[in-house]
Parts: sequence; structure tokens; C-alpha cells
Amino acid sequence: MKDAMKLVVVGAGGRMGQALIRIIHATEGATLHAAVVRPGSPLVGKDAGDIAGLGPIGVMVTDDPLAAFLDAHGVIDFTAPQTTTEFAALAAQARIVHVIGTTGCQPEHEAKIEAAARHARIVKSGNMSLGVNLLSVLVQQAARALDAAGWDIEVLEMHHKHKVDAPSGTALLLGEAAAKGRDIDLAGHSVRVRDGHTGPREAGSIGFATLRGGSVIGEHSVILAGEGELVTLSHSAGDRTIFARGAVKAALWAYDQKPGLYSMLDALGLNPTQ
Amino acid sequence: MKDAMKLVVVGAGGRMGQALIRIIHATEGATLHAAVVRPGSPLVGKDAGDIAGLGPIGVMVTDDPLAAFLDAHGVIDFTAPQTTTEFAALAAQARIVHVIGTTGCQPEHEAKIEAAARHARIVKSGNMSLGVNLLSVLVQQAARALDAAGWDIEVLEMHHKHKVDAPSGTALLLGEAAAKGRDIDLAGHSVRVRDGHTGPREAGSIGFATLRGGSVIGEHSVILAGEGELVTLSHSAGDRTIFARGAVKAALWAYDQKPGLYSMLDALGLNPTQ
Amino acid sequence: MKDAMKLVVVGAGGRMGQALIRIIHATEGATLHAAVVRPGSPLVGKDAGDIAGLGPIGVMVTDDPLAAFLDAHGVIDFTAPQTTTEFAALAAQARIVHVIGTTGCQPEHEAKIEAAARHARIVKSGNMSLGVNLLSVLVQQAARALDAAGWDIEVLEMHHKHKVDAPSGTALLLGEAAAKGRDIDLAGHSVRVRDGHTGPREAGSIGFATLRGGSVIGEHSVILAGEGELVTLSHSAGDRTIFARGAVKAALWAYDQKPGLYSMLDALGLNPTQ
Amino acid sequence: MKDAMKLVVVGAGGRMGQALIRIIHATEGATLHAAVVRPGSPLVGKDAGDIAGLGPIGVMVTDDPLAAFLDAHGVIDFTAPQTTTEFAALAAQARIVHVIGTTGCQPEHEAKIEAAARHARIVKSGNMSLGVNLLSVLVQQAARALDAAGWDIEVLEMHHKHKVDAPSGTALLLGEAAAKGRDIDLAGHSVRVRDGHTGPREAGSIGFATLRGGSVIGEHSVILAGEGELVTLSHSAGDRTIFARGAVKAALWAYDQKPGLYSMLDALGLNPTQ
Repeated sequence: MKDAMKLVVVGAGGRMGQALIRIIHATEGATLHAAVVRPGSPLVGKDAGDIAGLGPIGVMVTDDPLAAFLDAHGVIDFTAPQTTTEFAALAAQARIVHVIGTTGCQPEHEAKIEAAARHARIVKSGNMSLGVNLLSVLVQQAARALDAAGWDIEVLEMHHKHKVDAPSGTALLLGEAAAKGRDIDLAGHSVRVRDGHTGPREAGSIGFATLRGGSVIGEHSVILAGEGELVTLSHSAGDRTIFARGAVKAALWAYDQKPGLYSMLDALGLNPTQ
Repeated sequence: MKDAMKLVVVGAGGRMGQALIRIIHATEGATLHAAVVRPGSPLVGKDAGDIAGLGPIGVMVTDDPLAAFLDAHGVIDFTAPQTTTEFAALAAQARIVHVIGTTGCQPEHEAKIEAAARHARIVKSGNMSLGVNLLSVLVQQAARALDAAGWDIEVLEMHHKHKVDAPSGTALLLGEAAAKGRDIDLAGHSVRVRDGHTGPREAGSIGFATLRGGSVIGEHSVILAGEGELVTLSHSAGDRTIFARGAVKAALWAYDQKPGLYSMLDALGLNPTQ
Repeated sequence: MKDAMKLVVVGAGGRMGQALIRIIHATEGATLHAAVVRPGSPLVGKDAGDIAGLGPIGVMVTDDPLAAFLDAHGVIDFTAPQTTTEFAALAAQARIVHVIGTTGCQPEHEAKIEAAARHARIVKSGNMSLGVNLLSVLVQQAARALDAAGWDIEVLEMHHKHKVDAPSGTALLLGEAAAKGRDIDLAGHSVRVRDGHTGPREAGSIGFATLRGGSVIGEHSVILAGEGELVTLSHSAGDRTIFARGAVKAALWAYDQKPGLYSMLDALGLNPTQ
Repeated sequence: MKDAMKLVVVGAGGRMGQALIRIIHATEGATLHAAVVRPGSPLVGKDAGDIAGLGPIGVMVTDDPLAAFLDAHGVIDFTAPQTTTEFAALAAQARIVHVIGTTGCQPEHEAKIEAAARHARIVKSGNMSLGVNLLSVLVQQAARALDAAGWDIEVLEMHHKHKVDAPSGTALLLGEAAAKGRDIDLAGHSVRVRDGHTGPREAGSIGFATLRGGSVIGEHSVILAGEGELVTLSHSAGDRTIFARGAVKAALWAYDQKPGLYSMLDALGLNPTQ
């Protein structure tokens, strides 16, 4: 039997980092190797289990990623673009897996991540949940199977009242999947506002609608509407730990891969282009 | 036992008129007395059952409303504002029930209808379906019970791809019910577009979202979203005859009322203001 | 301005007790007066804020309810039938509000609670969430407005995979509300199983359907299905703290009431029988 | 350009037959060649367009299938198992396409259909709608991707109050797709009743829940419930003509195929086993 995969959590002091510590702790085949926080954080020297609400687990919090990565097998990273590129370089040096859930990366960050992927096994996705990734595959397939002349595609999402942008990144990701299934580009075919006299719906367009309210973590539906029938593909997130769970799953998968830049679809064996 | 209520259908040649003929024919306690079309219509003299797909029922189509109303008990009218005001005057003279499902009435039409209601029993509504009217009552009540500080209200609707305006009239009707429950005016509190950087949701606002696609007849949901819970009140129309059914029900109810201008809420015994 | 209502949490060491401590701490107009655990609990003497994950708030955990109730204004109780009857007697002596979310009470417990309600202001409900209580009122009203000949009522619920009984208590509560609206008794009209050759649906029956899976906290829908239209009234619980929130709201409401036994519907101003 | 495909409708006097006549009439690339009814039917000699509500289209209703098939390219058949096997033999002789939407076939019927498929191009399915067939593919894929230890599968369906069996054939078809994705047999893993003390949900089982009411044509959802997330794949039928539409699409597809027995998945290019 293979030893447990030794995982480092970076950004360990944040809400996502704490969730990762708890999930790794509960996952068979994975073990928490180190918990990294930013230099000078008051959390340095505490027990990682304590900061995650688990009680002590014997792993101290550190601000030295280089040491943390040394004997590790992988690192999970939901931090920020700048730190992620730094971790990518270190992970490549250490020849370990790097799972990246960081969002907001610009082309310069992407370039560095791609460079690192020559030596590291990197899995990167804007949404690490298993369900959303599966949904994106199904949406692409449905959009391909149901032709644009007869089937209209709409993407509906609902999030909590604090969310400041619309549509959500995941709604756009699902819209991209639909557009890919139709071999069209999303930007040129999306309808993001309807108010007043809109005229009839344009065939081949992809509509977006946004709901906001309460504490909803994230609801997404892709509706394919034909004459006399509807196909609806939905995802409902009830708990933010699904993103942590997905990241750990990605790490375990990548452990056996060759260096390269992978998506969650690869990690889930769902990539339709392969 | 009371005799069946003798009902006249005006606009009998249209899709709604034909549905009314079929529903009256199938409703115990109601009987088709006359079917009126516009002067000179080629349908004059045909059997009303034939034009409605029922086979002959022995009621001839006429273009003379005055004669048609003479021994009738009520008239059902989904025509246009101008003809509706004319029928209202005739119905008032004949002292019969007038059920009005006509939309798009302007203040001058409303004034004539109100005048007619001094002598006629009029039931008027922009949506004659039982379900939507009930829903509007429930929405008003829910909006009152769930305070604006803690609960966000969103109205979602979906209609077929041919619909040219947004949000639907029924979505606005439901939004009005919510606003009434909150003692606010809808226009000053509605959010009808969300795209790009919207900022967090404004407390007390009522949001609208619109989906378009396929042949959907009409789906409406009012979502009240609080911390940790959602209440959703929905209506789904599967068949346009529900509007005809509601109109006949309104006529039967009005048969026993005093002259006056009533809403579907009155007819359904659901008016919360009484 | 009235002083904050001083509230005691009994069963303070449990998951629900901790949630109550957090909610009271966050609610304007309420303050945590005492946190009671069972005699000899190792939590005695700890800070109530610490056990609830808030950090210290200066209220010590005690196992002496008598002392705890002495200068309090109310007690919130999600414990067990036996202890609840004991707390009811103490609360009646102390002339304070008693909010009871305890389930599983038998007639002998109910009798003691009713006796206590001669002196105490008691609010008791099997589901303290605002949303479900509102929904039950709306369901009763809808069931009354939509006659049994034309409208079929179905209750659908989904809960997590660990739930051991079906239908859920809340599904039955909603079924009771529907039956009350129809002036029928639920037991004689409910259909709880459908499999194989069922024959057509019996008019006037109330059907139940149960889904189980994952970690779903609680989803309930009451569907009223007529010819060509559906009205659906739903509640979705995303977070168990809604029950704590409802209980605190009930306590604040009861503060100004006369002694008596009240339901959440009274507390929410939604009781349709008054 | 290829000539329009000449299609025969058998069972032309039934509700499905009439829908097929209308759909063929409206489909580019297809033309109604003959309309066949059972021997001695009073419809023989009438215009097929008249019986379908289209007005006359110049195709007479006949009770002679042999003559009807002679110069045809295909036949569409939603009749009964016995007549379907007879039509299959005739279609094989005539070397034409045979689209079979007939349900309830027993092994002896299946054997005859398979024999006919050596010479005819046969497409056979228990549900001809595009949406449901696509959904079954997506369900199989989702069930494979989301492992049984972490994801529970539930199938929910709603139909009108007249339906006499449960779960629906389509619910079972979707359950089969899920079971296939999991490499299990459905019969040994399905849970079709939940009432009273059920105990916790058994991992790897596939649950069914049934709603009945009103005039609902057919709603199906497959819910995959994991820790903290749900994936829901749904189909809603708003109009029975979708089954006719699917059958005509299948006929047009089969026109260019080699003899053989195909499913709707083949016709839609969705068969995941190829």
C-alpha cells in the first residue's frame, strides 16, 4: 500500500485554509505535512489543528514555505495570484504537486504557472467542486447535442446578498462550456440584460439571469429550452468545504501523473477533449 | 336548483374565445348563450361549437352583441380596450355580469368600466388564472411577514422565446403584491438589471430576473431569501385554458353579487383587504 | 428604551445550545443571562462564549437552573421532554418566558406544559424556523382556496442520508396545514407510498414523497396541481441556526404577552385562526 | 438535393397518430405518404389532414399497410406490440425504415423485431423525446463520475392524476442509466418506498419518489447528492408532440443507415458505448 500523500496547505490562516486542514485530516490517503501562513503571522508556531478547530494534531504552523515543501508530496493553494506564482516556482523546484484554486490570475501569472508546469504537476481550476466540473462537461455535451435552431440556452444563478458582481464566475464558466459545445464564442452570443421591450429571443444566443438574496452559497442552472420540453442541469452548493474536498481529490489524482498543467476535468477523468 | 348561467363569449373567433367556448361547454352550471364576433366576420352564422373544435352545439355565431346580451346572464371578454368599454356599456344596460380579461386598458377605458360598474357586476383582472391570483395573495402576506432587513425578495419568470418584453406583466403583478406587503412602492424599489460590478444587494429592494426560451407558457417564482433559509412561491402554467377557466369561475361567482367592480381576488374569496 | 431581554439557554452544551448562545449574542434587544448544562457537566464554570466559539463573553456555564432563572426574562429550551417539563415548572415560578423547541413530547408532558402556561408565557413549536411557519400558514390558505375536486396536493421533502424516518416531521406539519385548509383529517387522506399499479390518484388525497441523500439539511415543497397549472410553496433550510434565530424571535415577542401557551404562528403574527 | 423522405403513419386515428401527421406535415425533408388505420375503421377514405386538424392535405386514410408501404421510405409506429411485429415484417420486406415508439413489448415481440432488423433499419425506444434521451446519457455519465460512496442517486418524477403506475417508465429508464453508470443492476439496488422508520439511506442505492397531480405531462429529475453539493439533471415535457418530433427525427436519421436495430441514442449521435 502506498504511503499517505503528504500535503502542505498554504494560506492556512484563512477560511479556506482552515477548511483544507480539516478535509485533509479527514481524508484517507492524505496527511497534513505543513501549514504555511504569511511571514510574521501571529499564527506561526501554533498547532494547525487548533486553528482549524480540530484540536491539536502535532503539525506546527510555519511561515517558511521552502522548508514546508521539502519532504512534501503536494501543496494546495487558494491564495492570491502573486503568491501563487511564487509557490508554483517552489513546487516546481521541489518536484511536487501544486493544486491551484486561486482566482483572478492575469496573463503574466498564467505564464509563470505554465512555466512551472514543465516540472511540477499542477491542477488549476476556478471552481474546485466536483459537481460544477462535472456539470460543465454535461452542459458542453448537451449544448452540442441540442441544436441552436431548436434549443435556447439560459444560465441562471443565485448567490448571497453580499456578492458584488454578476453573473458569477461559475455562471460564466458554464456559459463557456455551452458555447464550446456549440462551437461559438460566448462573448459574441451572450445576453446579460433583459428589460423593457427586448424583442423576441435571438436564436443561438446564451442568456444569463441573476438572483441575489440571503446567504445562498451558490446555485447554478443551465436550462436548454426546446419546443415542448426543457432540459435543466443544476448544481447547488450547500457548504464551502466542497471546494476544499475537490482540491484534495485533485492532489491525490495528480500524485501519479507526469508533470504538466491539468484542469479539474483531467483530475476527474471527465475531460471530453481527450 | 338554479338554472345554468347563460354566458356570452365576445371575441369568439380568437384563440381565447374558442377556449372559452370549450370551457363553458364543459362547466356544470354554465351554458353558452351566444358567441359574438366582430361585424362582418366570415364566422357569422357558423355553429360556435364547430369553430371551437367541439362539433355542433346549436349556438350560432353572431355579430350583434345587443341581441346576444338580451336574455344572457353574463359576458366574458378577452378583447381589446376599446371594444371592452363598448361591451361594458351594453352589459350595464342589460344588467348582466361582465368578466374582463382584456389587458392594456388606459385611464380613459378604466373610467368607462368604473362607470358601467354602477349597474353591472364586473370582474376585471390582468391574469385570470386561479393559481396566479392565489399566489399574489400569498406573496403579499409573505412579504409582510418577512421583514425587509432580514429577507430579500426576488421575482423570477420564464416565458417562450417569442415574448417581446421583460419582465412579464405577471412578474410585475407579483412584484406589486410584494411591494404592497412591504408598504413600499415597487417602482422606487425594483432592480431589473444586474450585470458586471453591481455592489452588494440593497436591503429592501425587489429584484427581477428573466429567462426566455422554447415554448414555455409561463413560469413565475417569488423567492424570499433570509439568513440560512429560502421561501419560494411559484406558479407554473402548462396550458392557456387556465385563463378561460378562471374567467368562467369569476362569472359564476359574480352572478350572485351586487353591482360593482371586482377583482379576481374577490371572486376567489381571497381579497386580503376585506 | 426597554432594557435588553435577559435570556437563559438550557442545554447549552449541545449543538443547538451553542447556536442559541451565538444568536442571542448577535441579537439586538437580547442578552445572554445564563447558560445551563446538566448537573455535573464538565462545562460548568467555563465561559459560555468560549464553548460557543465566540471567545469569552463573561457569562459562566452553570448547572443550577433555579439560580439561572432568578433574574432572567426568558429561557430557551431545545432539550428533551422530561427536562422541558421541569424547566416549565421553574419558568412558571419565576414568571418568565419559556420558548420550547423540544420535540417528542407525549400527552403527559403536554399536560404539564399547559399547566405551566397558566403562569408562564410559553411559545412551543416543532419547527422554530420563520420560513416553515410562514409556509404552513400559506399552505393552509392555499389548500382552502383551491378545491379538492380540481387541485391535488402533494408534499415533497428531501433530507440528508442519515435521517432515519420518513416523511419528515415538517412534511407532516405541512400536510396537517393542508388538511386543516381542506377541513379533512390528514391520517384518513394521506397517501404515503406509491409503487407498482397504484390506479389513478384519489381526489382529495394528500400525497407524500421522500428523497434522501447527501447532507441536505431540509427541503420541503407543497405542490398544488390543477388542470393546466401548478402552485408550489417551498422552504429550503441552508443552515441549522435558523431554528435558533426563530426561538430568540419568539422569546422577544412573548416578553410583552400575557401568560398562555402560544405557537410560533402567534409569535409571528401569522395565526390565521385569530 | 435529396427528395423528401416519404413517411407512413400507422395508428393514424389515435392521438399520437394525429400528432405525427401534423409534425411530418411541418417538417422540412419529410412528407406524409400514407396514413394507415386498422381494418374497417370509419376513418378509411377520409383526408389524413382533416383527421389531424390540418384541413385537407390530399393523403387518404387507408387500412391497407402493404399498399401504403410500397413506395414509402419509412413508417412511424406508436401502436401495440402485436401490430408492431406485423408492421416490422412488412417494413423489412419493403426495405424501409421502421421507427417504433410502441411500449410493452415482450421477449417474443422483441425477437421478431430483431429478426426484421436484418433487412430493415429500425429505431426503437420507450421514450422518443430528444430531451429524455439526452438526459439518460448525461445521467449515466454523472453516475459513473460521482462515486457511490460519496454520492446518493435519487430519481423523482411527477405525472398527471390519471396515471395508474409508479414509478413511470421514463423514471425507470433514467434509473437504468444511473445503474449502468455505476455498473450495478437496478433491481438489486433500487429503493421504491420510504415510510415510517426507514433507517439511514443505504450507500449505493438508487431511490425513487413519485408525485401525482393535475395534468402534468411528465417531469423527471435525477438528483445526485454529495456532501455539501447537489447535481440535478431534469427533463420537463410540456407537450406530447415532442414524442412525435423525436420519431420523425429518428426516421430522417435512419434513412441513411444500414439495416439494423438502433436506439434513439444512436439516432441522436449520443450513444456512449460507441
